[in-house]
Amino acid sequence: MNRIVKTHVLKVNRPFRLDSGDLLEHLDIAYETYGSLNDAKDNAILIEHALSGDAHAAFYHEGDKKPGWWDTMIGPGKGFDTDRYFIICSNVLGGCSGTTGPASINPATLKPYALRFPPITMRDMVESQRVLLSQLGIERLKCIAGGSMGGMQAMQFFCDYPSQVQSFISIASTMKHSAQQIAFNEVGRRAVMADPRWNGGNYYESVSPEAGLSVARMIGHITYLSEKMMQEKFGRIKKDKDARAIFRPSFEVEHYLDYQGISFVKRFDANSYLYITNAIDNFDLMASISSKERLRGEGRGRGRHFDELKTKRGLVISFSSDWLYPPSQAKEIVQLFTGLNVRVSYAEISTDHGHDAFLTDYVNQSDIIRSFLASFS
Amino acid sequence: MNRIVKTHVLKVNRPFRLDSGDLLEHLDIAYETYGSLNDAKDNAILIEHALSGDAHAAFYHEGDKKPGWWDTMIGPGKGFDTDRYFIICSNVLGGCSGTTGPASINPATLKPYALRFPPITMRDMVESQRVLLSQLGIERLKCIAGGSMGGMQAMQFFCDYPSQVQSFISIASTMKHSAQQIAFNEVGRRAVMADPRWNGGNYYESVSPEAGLSVARMIGHITYLSEKMMQEKFGRIKKDKDARAIFRPSFEVEHYLDYQGISFVKRFDANSYLYITNAIDNFDLMASISSKERLRGEGRGRGRHFDELKTKRGLVISFSSDWLYPPSQAKEIVQLFTGLNVRVSYAEISTDHGHDAFLTDYVNQSDIIRSFLASFS
Repeated sequence: MNRIVKTHVLKVNRPFRLDSGDLLEHLDIAYETYGSLNDAKDNAILIEHALSGDAHAAFYHEGDKKPGWWDTMIGPGKGFDTDRYFIICSNVLGGCSGTTGPASINPATLKPYALRFPPITMRDMVESQRVLLSQLGIERLKCIAGGSMGGMQAMQFFCDYPSQVQSFISIASTMKHSAQQIAFNEVGRRAVMADPRWNGGNYYESVSPEAGLSVARMIGHITYLSEKMMQEKFGRIKKDKDARAIFRPSFEVEHYLDYQGISFVKRFDANSYLYITNAIDNFDLMASISSKERLRGEGRGRGRHFDELKTKRGLVISFSSDWLYPPSQAKEIVQLFTGLNVRVSYAEISTDHGHDAFLTDYVNQSDIIRSFLASFS
Repeated sequence: MNRIVKTHVLKVNRPFRLDSGDLLEHLDIAYETYGSLNDAKDNAILIEHALSGDAHAAFYHEGDKKPGWWDTMIGPGKGFDTDRYFIICSNVLGGCSGTTGPASINPATLKPYALRFPPITMRDMVESQRVLLSQLGIERLKCIAGGSMGGMQAMQFFCDYPSQVQSFISIASTMKHSAQQIAFNEVGRRAVMADPRWNGGNYYESVSPEAGLSVARMIGHITYLSEKMMQEKFGRIKKDKDARAIFRPSFEVEHYLDYQGISFVKRFDANSYLYITNAIDNFDLMASISSKERLRGEGRGRGRHFDELKTKRGLVISFSSDWLYPPSQAKEIVQLFTGLNVRVSYAEISTDHGHDAFLTDYVNQSDIIRSFLASFS
């Protein structure tokens, strides 16, 4: 079958209001789809990507040798089976891979927004996805699923629009950041902003703050791998045995981080990094769903009917060696949704691969997800 | 009693050979002493400082309101009792608080060494301390003790010169860095070097790379606190509730890190940070003592007499919530020295204070150290 796919861009030429109250006059939403929507239009699954992901979740772009970031999980017979389901993935609002973000042109100035881009929230990302779904003629989702920040979006969508979603899958995620998790993100942001090339966010006409963004990414990668895996993979092995090599990478683990930093800055916008990590740090699911305003049913999409949740399903997956979003935080998610009367299943997958396991350990994940999706219609 | 102290500087005007083979023509060693050397000259204890420490371990400098960094542990009746022992602490080689380091004047150019400073090792730090001890007329140490990098120096000294040291105390330390520990240091170094003001190490005549060094220090501080302590201390509390505050610290944990970064760069040299963390990453006690060269008894101080270790004592202390140098690594130290027939005591102190506990949790530490030192003469 044809496993070539293209990224489409939906151009929304009407104002889009954000959580902050700001308006975006125009909105682009980059997205891809895999499989086919059935006649009943009830087999759609929305996939949410993590911090550094994009709309290209699966299959191949014409001429590419590498498939999308979750191709192991999405396809014929896979965990998200494209023979059964219509899979959609869009780049998040604030991103830099086709959806409107700080690098996009500000219609008011005809220059990139840079820091004039308004702050965004997890809820804003969800709202932009609802615009896309509406355009695709999809009223209800079979499931909304994602890992890491993708799990946050999935849960936010599920709680905000229970009538629109049958189930959620949250993988290697949390319902709010701890102080330590905020701290890691903050140091990454500070690394970006410490780079003079960042220049208050105005670098689009010159050189981008690659050195700073690369340091931020290196910090991230330490938290993505388990201590054990890092030790087994790199240990204390030195590529460069020159004792004078203080000022360049010499240990293999240093080369690994170096490579990760360099490849990231080629494809990611530094301001997007700031805006998205800020949205992550400010995400607080419980505070969000219990705010009085929401319960009173005011404002944009704010008529919550938590009673509806009783008929809904949830799946929470964590990885034993994930120290960025540890199993303890997954259990808090299970507790929250159990309290809301959602039927939640929980699986802790035993692995040494740390947080990255949501991208790499697809065999167990696929089995669990396949069974979960088959268990309700 | 008089608790005012001064930092002295020993000027060594003869060449000092380093592990790398390089020679330093001249060497300054900054040090302080507390208490008195007895007539038998057998009550001296050498205190080793950590990465960001200095010779000012205890008491007050004239006019200062804050005492030295381990004043809770060193003084009359304290863990290191100055009524009984003569305590010495010197700034490490490569440092920036009085001892020769990259910011010192290179006699060959009459400018700061910067990156012309040769790479240094834990063994070089130890050798410089032996020059100081010799000058002070001290042939034997009752004990050599330190936390974090201080523990590394203590163990290196103890293994290299067993005839000169009666015991060692290693607190919150390790005998070698894991890949993850190297990774954290490397990201810190990269943050410094990514700052254009670092300028290949040549910044002494202009502005120092404060932004980069501050990011490095922030990364360090995340690893110094336990996840639990950070959560209890800061949680998700926001000082600045302005949702637009993406580009300045808003969460309290961000303000804390910011403060730590800013206060560090005022007192620390960026190149020293690179040289010292490099020495830490390359420290490998087991490799060092088992190298054939050493066992053959060649070269500078290389006649090892491991038989001597049988009459020696060791004390290893770890902290339950220290995730930078966790108890598992302390147990490896105990295992190593037990294998060398040293009588080693081990204490794991239960605390939420993480790695920083070696500086803050002085009550339990003092009791353990006091008993340990009293148990042999």
